[in-house]
Amino acid sequence: MISNNSFSFVINKELPGTLARTGIISTPHGTIKTPAFIVVGTKATVKAMLPEQVKEIGAQAILANAYHLFLRPGPKVIEEAGGLSTFMNWDGPTFTDSGGFQVLSLGIGYKKVLSMESDRYDEDSTIARPSKRMASVTEDGVTFKSHLDGKLHHFTPERSIQIQHELGADIMFAFDECTALQNSYEYQRESLNRTHRWAERCLVEHHTQSRERTNKPYQALFGVIQGAQYKDLRREAAKFLGNLPFDGYGIGGALEKKLLPDIIGWVNEILPKNKPKHLLGISEPDDMFAAIEQGVDTFDCVSPTRTARNGGIYTPTGRINILGAKYRFDYQPVCDTCDCYTCKNYSRAYLHHLFRAKEILASILASIHNERFIVSLVDRMRETIISGDYHDFRDEWLASYYQK
Amino acid sequence: MISNNSFSFVINKELPGTLARTGIISTPHGTIKTPAFIVVGTKATVKAMLPEQVKEIGAQAILANAYHLFLRPGPKVIEEAGGLSTFMNWDGPTFTDSGGFQVLSLGIGYKKVLSMESDRYDEDSTIARPSKRMASVTEDGVTFKSHLDGKLHHFTPERSIQIQHELGADIMFAFDECTALQNSYEYQRESLNRTHRWAERCLVEHHTQSRERTNKPYQALFGVIQGAQYKDLRREAAKFLGNLPFDGYGIGGALEKKLLPDIIGWVNEILPKNKPKHLLGISEPDDMFAAIEQGVDTFDCVSPTRTARNGGIYTPTGRINILGAKYRFDYQPVCDTCDCYTCKNYSRAYLHHLFRAKEILASILASIHNERFIVSLVDRMRETIISGDYHDFRDEWLASYYQK
Repeated sequence: MISNNSFSFVINKELPGTLARTGIISTPHGTIKTPAFIVVGTKATVKAMLPEQVKEIGAQAILANAYHLFLRPGPKVIEEAGGLSTFMNWDGPTFTDSGGFQVLSLGIGYKKVLSMESDRYDEDSTIARPSKRMASVTEDGVTFKSHLDGKLHHFTPERSIQIQHELGADIMFAFDECTALQNSYEYQRESLNRTHRWAERCLVEHHTQSRERTNKPYQALFGVIQGAQYKDLRREAAKFLGNLPFDGYGIGGALEKKLLPDIIGWVNEILPKNKPKHLLGISEPDDMFAAIEQGVDTFDCVSPTRTARNGGIYTPTGRINILGAKYRFDYQPVCDTCDCYTCKNYSRAYLHHLFRAKEILASILASIHNERFIVSLVDRMRETIISGDYHDFRDEWLASYYQK
Repeated sequence: MISNNSFSFVINKELPGTLARTGIISTPHGTIKTPAFIVVGTKATVKAMLPEQVKEIGAQAILANAYHLFLRPGPKVIEEAGGLSTFMNWDGPTFTDSGGFQVLSLGIGYKKVLSMESDRYDEDSTIARPSKRMASVTEDGVTFKSHLDGKLHHFTPERSIQIQHELGADIMFAFDECTALQNSYEYQRESLNRTHRWAERCLVEHHTQSRERTNKPYQALFGVIQGAQYKDLRREAAKFLGNLPFDGYGIGGALEKKLLPDIIGWVNEILPKNKPKHLLGISEPDDMFAAIEQGVDTFDCVSPTRTARNGGIYTPTGRINILGAKYRFDYQPVCDTCDCYTCKNYSRAYLHHLFRAKEILASILASIHNERFIVSLVDRMRETIISGDYHDFRDEWLASYYQK
């Protein structure tokens, strides 16, 4: 158990033969039972959902983004509101991503190679993939153009921490450079070393500022492990950052789907076991199962709501597209085994109609279902780690979902 | 009191010196205390609101549109679902407009001259004002092109009733021709006579079909008063339709704002007092006050949600545009006197942010507030008719809202 004022992480149960474990993260705004899926609310709103609905689907925490909130409405607006959770009327724990991914994804044409590859990139629909480089990296930080108005901004590790202090989330991430798979090994190494120097600067800034912010709730700071697909770099990152006084760790960066379990294993064998591990930007079920077995405690991803807005609906036998003509007269619930508001009250025929008619309620109902689906899937992983039925649950669930 | 199976209207209290009254409309799906504002759900959804939210803001009934639902999803889809209210998960009373307005508004470049003039026309954002005539009227009915795919359709009074039977709303409207102010007096007269023949055909079709639909809940049929700005035509319409066995009346058509009270007075002095009167497509507060004093019982309009989606927010001192820069740091509720979910839980600063960021939650929260604002305004009119404070309430309310 670690504890810094009101932040702590306790491990409760471990799954023999794996790194999987259950635990409880405690924050000033409440606790998170892990493993847990953290719902994304990039711009201080989970798209198309009220906070009460987010709570009702079982979400324990929301992750917002420092880059988006820096540009709009600006961190001062949120600080004066009393912080992110007060501003958005969410009384549970919150995370903020540092903005490192976003400032760079606008500049480098970065592309993850996981199936959910472009999710975080496309989170804001106003972002078009830029035709020319919009960001540049130096030792000091990143200079980038706003995707909203083209204005130049400069982020440094210190500025990212200051912004995240103003936003006031319970868990922040260090400012990092997120590289692309196609970068050379030499560049990955150079970048990783810079990210580590930035990590130290984030810690210094955080602790300096925290001493002056004694009237504010404690904010935990997670280091972010980079190193792309390279075992030596990933292990070096885990060793270096594992020795720094972070409250937990994010695992990010360029990942090939087939290497995902290995990469997580490499770093989690080295990182302090008693600190929580967050896998950034992942919600594909097979990836989540694999990651949990390698010791990941929390996930976030925009996919459930983004897929929902496009008519993609998760079911236990795979994803369906509710716009398909065969659903026009289908009066079954989306999932008859699902306990969400949407499945209890509406038919596939009604959702089909709403999507065809481009009604806002389509996005609302589909988002509620998809978020419930993913949150409850991770809840079941947690429960079966406790009960000991994890492997049976996993095998049956994956066979049904991927129809293998 | 009239009563046809499970449809009835009872007048409870009248306001001396006016035609205003309170009453109760009873339908198979519940009762409506009048005067009442009926929320619009054109395509079987009140835009951006869940049915529970519609109920929570105090709405007693929802009005959908036969034209839109005929085109998509098709009336059979709704009939097989168990009717409109089951399909959309709304357990209260429902209305359907006949589609007469919509098929013609697509063809004739029709324009009402009230302040809410284009609301019903623009309800579906995919409708662009057509450059050439898309509908033609004959004695038999209206031939028109779908605004969705350009396909030709033919509506007759009989077909409209059949569709409205399939939709299964508690209150239907007769199929009418809605003329434009710029039509000649001669055309208005010709059209009015045709609308009256159509009204008779609607009644015949309704009663013929109803005899075969004995297992279905009773559906009330309202005649629609046309006659544009002409006193003789409006009075003729009221006399003619007033003598037919309709369950109630809609007042529609081309209306100049300054003539609105007169027109309603002309027809309501003639129409049977004991039948409910619905004013189609109106929610501007001064118009509603005037109409209630002339004996109108119910209203519908898309304006509250449409205005909301554009950032227009009703307040007791007039409408504000929440996108204005002055709201960026404004942490007050939208209205500090409003009891809606939005005002109890969110600041103007948060709404401002959501609208600037084009988040769906912006439409949700603003729609909840605006619908609550209009529904509760009409509720207050009803309450003050009962208490006898109506005129004081009206004068104070209008002075504040229009800042006179």
